[in-house]
Amino acid sequence: MARIRLGMVGGGNDAFIGGVHRIASRIDDRYELVAGALSSTPEKAQASGKVLGLARIYDDYKQMAIREARLKNGIEAVSIVTPNHVHYEAAREFLKRGIHVICDKPLTSTLADAKKLVKAAENSKALFVLTHNYTGYPMVRQAREMVANGDFGKIRVVQVEYPQDWLSVEQDFKQAEWRTDPARSGAGGSTGDIGTHAHNLARFITGLEVESLAADLEAFVPGRKVDDNGHVLLRFEGGAKGMLWCSQVAPGNENALRIRVYGETGGLEWAQEDPNYLWHTPFGEPKRLITRNGAGAGDAAARVSRIPPGHPEGYLEGFANIYSEAADAIVAHRDGQPVPADVLFPTITDGLKGVEFIDACVRSSARNAAWVKL
Amino acid sequence: MARIRLGMVGGGNDAFIGGVHRIASRIDDRYELVAGALSSTPEKAQASGKVLGLARIYDDYKQMAIREARLKNGIEAVSIVTPNHVHYEAAREFLKRGIHVICDKPLTSTLADAKKLVKAAENSKALFVLTHNYTGYPMVRQAREMVANGDFGKIRVVQVEYPQDWLSVEQDFKQAEWRTDPARSGAGGSTGDIGTHAHNLARFITGLEVESLAADLEAFVPGRKVDDNGHVLLRFEGGAKGMLWCSQVAPGNENALRIRVYGETGGLEWAQEDPNYLWHTPFGEPKRLITRNGAGAGDAAARVSRIPPGHPEGYLEGFANIYSEAADAIVAHRDGQPVPADVLFPTITDGLKGVEFIDACVRSSARNAAWVKL
Amino acid sequence: MARIRLGMVGGGNDAFIGGVHRIASRIDDRYELVAGALSSTPEKAQASGKVLGLARIYDDYKQMAIREARLKNGIEAVSIVTPNHVHYEAAREFLKRGIHVICDKPLTSTLADAKKLVKAAENSKALFVLTHNYTGYPMVRQAREMVANGDFGKIRVVQVEYPQDWLSVEQDFKQAEWRTDPARSGAGGSTGDIGTHAHNLARFITGLEVESLAADLEAFVPGRKVDDNGHVLLRFEGGAKGMLWCSQVAPGNENALRIRVYGETGGLEWAQEDPNYLWHTPFGEPKRLITRNGAGAGDAAARVSRIPPGHPEGYLEGFANIYSEAADAIVAHRDGQPVPADVLFPTITDGLKGVEFIDACVRSSARNAAWVKL
Amino acid sequence: MARIRLGMVGGGNDAFIGGVHRIASRIDDRYELVAGALSSTPEKAQASGKVLGLARIYDDYKQMAIREARLKNGIEAVSIVTPNHVHYEAAREFLKRGIHVICDKPLTSTLADAKKLVKAAENSKALFVLTHNYTGYPMVRQAREMVANGDFGKIRVVQVEYPQDWLSVEQDFKQAEWRTDPARSGAGGSTGDIGTHAHNLARFITGLEVESLAADLEAFVPGRKVDDNGHVLLRFEGGAKGMLWCSQVAPGNENALRIRVYGETGGLEWAQEDPNYLWHTPFGEPKRLITRNGAGAGDAAARVSRIPPGHPEGYLEGFANIYSEAADAIVAHRDGQPVPADVLFPTITDGLKGVEFIDACVRSSARNAAWVKL
Repeated sequence: MARIRLGMVGGGNDAFIGGVHRIASRIDDRYELVAGALSSTPEKAQASGKVLGLARIYDDYKQMAIREARLKNGIEAVSIVTPNHVHYEAAREFLKRGIHVICDKPLTSTLADAKKLVKAAENSKALFVLTHNYTGYPMVRQAREMVANGDFGKIRVVQVEYPQDWLSVEQDFKQAEWRTDPARSGAGGSTGDIGTHAHNLARFITGLEVESLAADLEAFVPGRKVDDNGHVLLRFEGGAKGMLWCSQVAPGNENALRIRVYGETGGLEWAQEDPNYLWHTPFGEPKRLITRNGAGAGDAAARVSRIPPGHPEGYLEGFANIYSEAADAIVAHRDGQPVPADVLFPTITDGLKGVEFIDACVRSSARNAAWVKL
Repeated sequence: MARIRLGMVGGGNDAFIGGVHRIASRIDDRYELVAGALSSTPEKAQASGKVLGLARIYDDYKQMAIREARLKNGIEAVSIVTPNHVHYEAAREFLKRGIHVICDKPLTSTLADAKKLVKAAENSKALFVLTHNYTGYPMVRQAREMVANGDFGKIRVVQVEYPQDWLSVEQDFKQAEWRTDPARSGAGGSTGDIGTHAHNLARFITGLEVESLAADLEAFVPGRKVDDNGHVLLRFEGGAKGMLWCSQVAPGNENALRIRVYGETGGLEWAQEDPNYLWHTPFGEPKRLITRNGAGAGDAAARVSRIPPGHPEGYLEGFANIYSEAADAIVAHRDGQPVPADVLFPTITDGLKGVEFIDACVRSSARNAAWVKL
Repeated sequence: MARIRLGMVGGGNDAFIGGVHRIASRIDDRYELVAGALSSTPEKAQASGKVLGLARIYDDYKQMAIREARLKNGIEAVSIVTPNHVHYEAAREFLKRGIHVICDKPLTSTLADAKKLVKAAENSKALFVLTHNYTGYPMVRQAREMVANGDFGKIRVVQVEYPQDWLSVEQDFKQAEWRTDPARSGAGGSTGDIGTHAHNLARFITGLEVESLAADLEAFVPGRKVDDNGHVLLRFEGGAKGMLWCSQVAPGNENALRIRVYGETGGLEWAQEDPNYLWHTPFGEPKRLITRNGAGAGDAAARVSRIPPGHPEGYLEGFANIYSEAADAIVAHRDGQPVPADVLFPTITDGLKGVEFIDACVRSSARNAAWVKL
Repeated sequence: MARIRLGMVGGGNDAFIGGVHRIASRIDDRYELVAGALSSTPEKAQASGKVLGLARIYDDYKQMAIREARLKNGIEAVSIVTPNHVHYEAAREFLKRGIHVICDKPLTSTLADAKKLVKAAENSKALFVLTHNYTGYPMVRQAREMVANGDFGKIRVVQVEYPQDWLSVEQDFKQAEWRTDPARSGAGGSTGDIGTHAHNLARFITGLEVESLAADLEAFVPGRKVDDNGHVLLRFEGGAKGMLWCSQVAPGNENALRIRVYGETGGLEWAQEDPNYLWHTPFGEPKRLITRNGAGAGDAAARVSRIPPGHPEGYLEGFANIYSEAADAIVAHRDGQPVPADVLFPTITDGLKGVEFIDACVRSSARNAAWVKL
């Protein structure tokens, strides 16, 4: 089966997430990266494109969208891996030309942009895939499947957190710089960068939407313009309650995304840094350790696993699962078929939910952690 | 040195915590249990007293207080281990007769009682010791010492939680029954029974008081009259912020009290179920595992440790530390000396703070998690 | 029920294990320590006895045995907690006068002494209890019960180890000094001090005796006269095979005794430093975490547990279990009854097996790790 | 830079390791798989090649070697991923035509073949790379670097193990079938399949060769023709001693390769199933957790890491590191340059050492675990 011709916007030499997307696209051999506008600076865009050996290098994404759309074998999909404030305009250019978009999270830097992008996607035949990559981990799929199967009964409590420590002090390298600039990152700092991952993970696993939240955000590092710590109370549809904590000032935490879900008849626990394990406790029985592809793991996890249990898959494989799910959808689209039922990836709706979450956190915190509906 | 003559109120045959107090009082050989009114039912009180071989068995605590106070070698201290609603009246009887009180937590079942008991203690020469036993763990002492030494810089974030699972379903045995009855337990359910432990631990380690809180309490099990899950946002004096979660409906959690504290220059983590370990991360350095009496552990922990590292001490030893600290204070009192400076135990002030915490949680939750000052 | 009158030989001020025995004897309130010959130096014996408030202080153990045997209310049992080379002669004095002996391990410093002591015990009506204390841990009992129940099928592989690090360099304090002196410790260094614990634990849990072994012992620290590291291949009766590793020169290990047992249908794992957990994997199913007194734990563990799951019991409670089992046996003996069937403690036979193990290791190693029958 | 043209021998549809090699070769985008003889059955070879979209599909490897060597743009390297007994003849065909060989472990199924293959490699200008993939893990590189830097002083003790459980019962699927057939797997069962990994890992990290060993091998499952459990005592050059355990009958173990190394001044621990962590204890200091790319990790690990700490890399990335190291060497070879000094991959010498290890284990065990020189 022919590889999907892929382009990339952003992701030049000094970027982190662009390289991740490129590896993720390669792991299952479903894509071939052929074109790119890898930087907002034309010289950098050219230089980075050459290093990668791209067939077609562009100075800017709009030019790329226009030309690729006209080529007989132009790109079928584009990965957008720029800072947040560029997502909306870049994605729109490709969507309106029927090129599938694989976009980094959060969807946009403002809620207004997010809503406009939803419309742009609705008006396009192209697919829109958001890389809330943690939903690609096999044991996250396992957790979702178990909740859906009723293994925990009705869900009561959701504890989700994503602490980091890298912004415990003022940092001035590029990754830190744009992520703490509200003009580029959006109004949320830790809430936007990692809180949205936690929020999305809770929704994905439980299948429940957050109805309202109360957020107490703080910028602990002097001079910081966006929150670097967020404490959020959650109320889910159907009566479940939760807590969400995101922080970039918690020394000893690297990417300690972790979720615990408790229902009437059992509980589960999963941690991103040890992603091949899922802890499951049926109430009144010993805790069980389910391993990726191991005893007790089901179809949903097996679908997105490559190797036997005890040989760990990691972040890049989870990320690759989003790309490979997208590939299945794109190939179905090529053939005029609907997306297969078992294909699962975060959509623009998830993206909008994420930006609404950030917006609600910021508004709640501004009102002394008052409850805000979502 | 002569053992301290000890009495006990509550703690009959079918009680759990009475047995714990008795073992704790024996471990360091500082007490001799000689008298008791071990049940509110006289027959049970007699039977339980005989099983324990008590020298003097009473039908009720008031009778015991009166008679022991008159004896030449009457009890010097009494342990009060009844359900919460009895604490106030029982403690008052002993305090007013100059008998030291070692009382289980929470201090009382109502805030009004707590305030009256504070006055009773102020008017007594006797000591008042509250068994917030988790403060007796050596590595909790270590954590407190490190915070006080400035090892973490100014504290920014405190995450504390105490989940259990035993009340995930309706239970009707004795321990469950009185703990879910507001008349005996107080207005707080999980908040009173275990949330106070979490609150006290955060105060003890950080040395910071909670200034205000916003609590979202819930009774998930149908028919339950008190909360079985509490989500609480905390604001500490000096600007630190925190989250406190207590739950009795979280399957897979036995007594999973856990605290994480983050400051400008480092972070720590401690978990009650693995109490001999303290994780310490100086920002920018590898995480370190400090063990009880092992490398990196200091004087505060060594003072309350009995055996070498790698041989675990547990819950009973931590509880015994409260008793042994109390013994040091009682012996000093015997001799007309002040309590030695390094002796550390939870006081009636801590007890009042705990009841204020419960009261604030209940009031905040009744007002839709509005902020309540403490 | 009247407490058992207990004496102690060894365990003066600067000893470690004497204090452990005293706490262990107190935890369940079955003993009262009334007499002692706590040091081989009379002045120290007197001073140490006074600190403990002993009723009767002796200058040496023989004098103590003679006089206590004549007293109407003399000691019923004696704890022997001296360096190893004293065990035999001290124990003999009490055994021949009908006083029960609770003796620290290893049984003796030579195999000849061990055999003589076995005869002395056979000729005495008194009980002999060896404090291979790790067999007192509830989850060790659980493991033994599960093996006996056939939960693992026929046992195939046993991996047991006890690494420490405290002798990684030359040490000159008292504990190190006698333990590395073959005249007092015996011919085995790490094999005698901790290897015997590992050997006994394997026997206790599996119910299998070691038939032969091949040992490669080493003294890594220059000038050391006994082994500080032992690598041992084991062959058990019935065909199971195993490895035993003991070391005192393994930095990062405190008292890391750990055992793993694998049978036809499942495996288990237990570690002394986290003693409240037992890992059980039925082949083809997820690994399960059984906790002390928690879901999945059975009667054998419950019998020797004091408090609910999630509240850790530790080394001292495990040690106390040996004392309390001994107390049950002693009380039965008082009443002319046989030792109750569920009472379980290490006997002089276990002690002899331990000394045979040490002897076999030393002989095997001297012959280039040749196989030696046990 | 042009991708390296790669062929593959073995690795058809129902193979496991072939797919792993393909992903590993893609992750860093250094190879393009263009040709293959993917099965010893021509129909399967054709079918599997078509599924992968190979440019050139061959019925057998010899035909492939001959033709590719003649093509202008024939393959530059070949991956050999067949059962062990095919390695020698297949590798020889490519080596003698100057095509680089990337070969799965163990090197061959017999020692005689291994020695012949060494000669074949010596007579070829082509490179020979053995995929002892665990040496590709960043924290294994970190461990090796620390040992080489003298962070542990002189090495004393090495404990290495690789337990699995999948062969606890008789299995008849393809992976199990050839691995338990001495004609295809070689004389070692667990020793050959996984014991060699453990042996190689110990050599790689410590830089020490095993001088002699004593092995007690067993086939526990009735009817099994090769060992499924191996207990091995090790003596290293320079005086260090060790134990190696490999097992395929240890329920609860998936791929639990784990190594612990102790020297005069410190110890380390690494486990394959949690590969992003390295535990380091400087004697007398707290244990430290070094994470991949995190605080405390050095250049050797960073060289082979792709993403920030806290985002786990796994088995496939470690495997990819071997491929990418090989790619650096192949590119240097293209340009007539020596292999760069920091490029590190297992060589044919490592392969020979591995087969010698298997052979020594089998011979030692046949002689009742007598010492055998390596």
